[in-house]
Amino acid sequence: MPEETLSFSDSEREFLEKYLPPNSRQHDGKLPSITLTFATSLDSSIALAPGVRTQLSGPRSKAMTHYIRSRHDAILIGVGTAAADDPALNCRLEGAGGYGSDGLSQQPRPIVIDPSARWALSEQSRILVLAKAGRGRAPYILTSNPSPPKESVELLERYGGKYISMGLSKVVAGRSHLDWKTILEQLKDEGLHSIMVEGGGSIINSLLEPQNQNHVSSVIVTIAPLWLGQGGVVVSPEQGTDETGTVITASTLKAVKWHPLGEDIVLCGTF
Amino acid sequence: MPEETLSFSDSEREFLEKYLPPNSRQHDGKLPSITLTFATSLDSSIALAPGVRTQLSGPRSKAMTHYIRSRHDAILIGVGTAAADDPALNCRLEGAGGYGSDGLSQQPRPIVIDPSARWALSEQSRILVLAKAGRGRAPYILTSNPSPPKESVELLERYGGKYISMGLSKVVAGRSHLDWKTILEQLKDEGLHSIMVEGGGSIINSLLEPQNQNHVSSVIVTIAPLWLGQGGVVVSPEQGTDETGTVITASTLKAVKWHPLGEDIVLCGTF
Ligand SMILES: NC(=O)c1ccc[n+]([C@@H]2O[C@H](COP(=O)([O-])OP(=O)(O)OC[C@H]3O[C@@H](n4cnc5c(N)ncnc54)[C@H](OP(=O)(O)O)[C@@H]3O)[C@@H](O)[C@H]2O)c1
Ligand SMILES: NC(=O)c1ccc[n+]([C@@H]2O[C@H](COP(=O)([O-])OP(=O)(O)OC[C@H]3O[C@@H](n4cnc5c(N)ncnc54)[C@H](OP(=O)(O)O)[C@@H]3O)[C@@H](O)[C@H]2O)c1
Repeated sequence: MPEETLSFSDSEREFLEKYLPPNSRQHDGKLPSITLTFATSLDSSIALAPGVRTQLSGPRSKAMTHYIRSRHDAILIGVGTAAADDPALNCRLEGAGGYGSDGLSQQPRPIVIDPSARWALSEQSRILVLAKAGRGRAPYILTSNPSPPKESVELLERYGGKYISMGLSKVVAGRSHLDWKTILEQLKDEGLHSIMVEGGGSIINSLLEPQNQNHVSSVIVTIAPLWLGQGGVVVSPEQGTDETGTVITASTLKAVKWHPLGEDIVLCGTF
Repeated sequence: MPEETLSFSDSEREFLEKYLPPNSRQHDGKLPSITLTFATSLDSSIALAPGVRTQLSGPRSKAMTHYIRSRHDAILIGVGTAAADDPALNCRLEGAGGYGSDGLSQQPRPIVIDPSARWALSEQSRILVLAKAGRGRAPYILTSNPSPPKESVELLERYGGKYISMGLSKVVAGRSHLDWKTILEQLKDEGLHSIMVEGGGSIINSLLEPQNQNHVSSVIVTIAPLWLGQGGVVVSPEQGTDETGTVITASTLKAVKWHPLGEDIVLCGTF
């Protein structure tokens, strides 16, 4: 087994169960479920600055993330994260494909939201290196660009990935909003029924907006006991207002559970 | 007993003990200790907008705040909070002076940082109404203004409060920084040895800065499971940098304890 293999015990798994997609379920034509998962500082920052990879949470939280990955058909991120972090986006949990078992079982499909197809993939991209080694899947890249760069198309297809061209956003009150319904319909057509959304800031803030919350089945946030400081990539949805235009709380979680994990706390909830 | 009297049981008090000033202690010439206490949303906001009083935490957290008040000689806030919230700043815990006992025992001294003496106090200010009713103390207002408005001086002195004129800030690298050492020396001279700092945003951010952390004995943050949204009053210290100018984590807590309280979580730690 590769030395980076992680383990997350049954007793640690228990508190999460209520917030994860069922292990086996009927896909009765419903849209895929979304589990929104990310790690923040006390000042709701997910990175010290745009493009700066920032280790926030401790080793137990990392193992938890990989366990949660193993429970989803796909992991979704924005191109900001793909371009900044060169992420692996595979599941390194003991027992997953390439980490103690053959095949690609428990390896989720990486999905990247890349409106203009600007992510510069290469043979050296970690995600493709892992796909080549049989330790993860090549990504599906959702784009609004009808003709993505030819070399990237070929590179992706060599490893089993692809571009999916579609309208990603719609304009609401003069602002471009990610159109989650269309994205989820597309992912359903690909046979992906449970989606773990990991970041980054823009993607998370979009899902926290009141009009998108109905697509989110549960939220799992890990909070580290530190302040990254001003100027980071911040999770904070647009302000909410009531009928009279008065500012109100943007989003409130229900069915809340707090679970300490190492130095961090894990918050689970639903909308 | 007034109907707003709060109770906080012995079993609930236990987890806080390590983070509070000792019940009796030697004041061996040391500067007063600071307990930094505030409530935030998940997006580190303490109010929906400047000047908008925002109820963030639940009833158990409120009772906790009043218990913590009972354990300090003084509660300190900035003029932004005083002017926006017209706060009571007394202790409404069962057994405190005016809430089941005579005198003013367990009633901390309110301290307001008001550089230009702009807070417009009146007979109707909640803090003075309570002082008049024997349910709290009148405030000490720290100011850099050598001659605060005469009416306010008289009003304050009628109820046992006063202005204290002093240099509140010093200029570091072209920016005005609150001079906590001088503030604490002044409070010590007033016989106040334990200070609970409650807010608002500017005051808290100032204490979270690396050069001021040494004055903070412990931090107690209550986090509510909601996002207030962009545009609120945010707790986030200035960005930290290392010798090479690289951005680093601004502040990290040690001796961390997380404690669920109702729907909220309470984070205790030290620097
Ligand atoms: N701590 C954690 O858990 C965690 C997890 C993941 C990422 N991160 C951090 O987050 C940072 C990246 O965050 P980010 O906000 O820059 O990037 P991001 O959310 O990963 O991706 C943002 C991109 O998505 C597209 N997009 C966003 N809103 C859209 C809309 N309404 N319509 C169409 N397209 C839209 C835009 O692409 P175009 O610009 O091409 O239009 C945008 O640049 C990185 O520094 C990463 O390290 C942290
Ligand atoms: N959720 C909670 O736990 C909580 C607790 C308390 C307050 N709050 C909220 O916080 C908000 C108020 O926060 P705020 O940041 O506006 O006000 P604040 O921190 O209460 O007071 C800020 C004031 O302190 C003075 N000050 C700050 N830095 C200084 C420096 N370096 N040198 C000299 N003076 C300095 C300035 O007075 P001048 O402007 O006169 O110069 C400044 O306006 C309110 O909306 C309140 O509801 C929330």
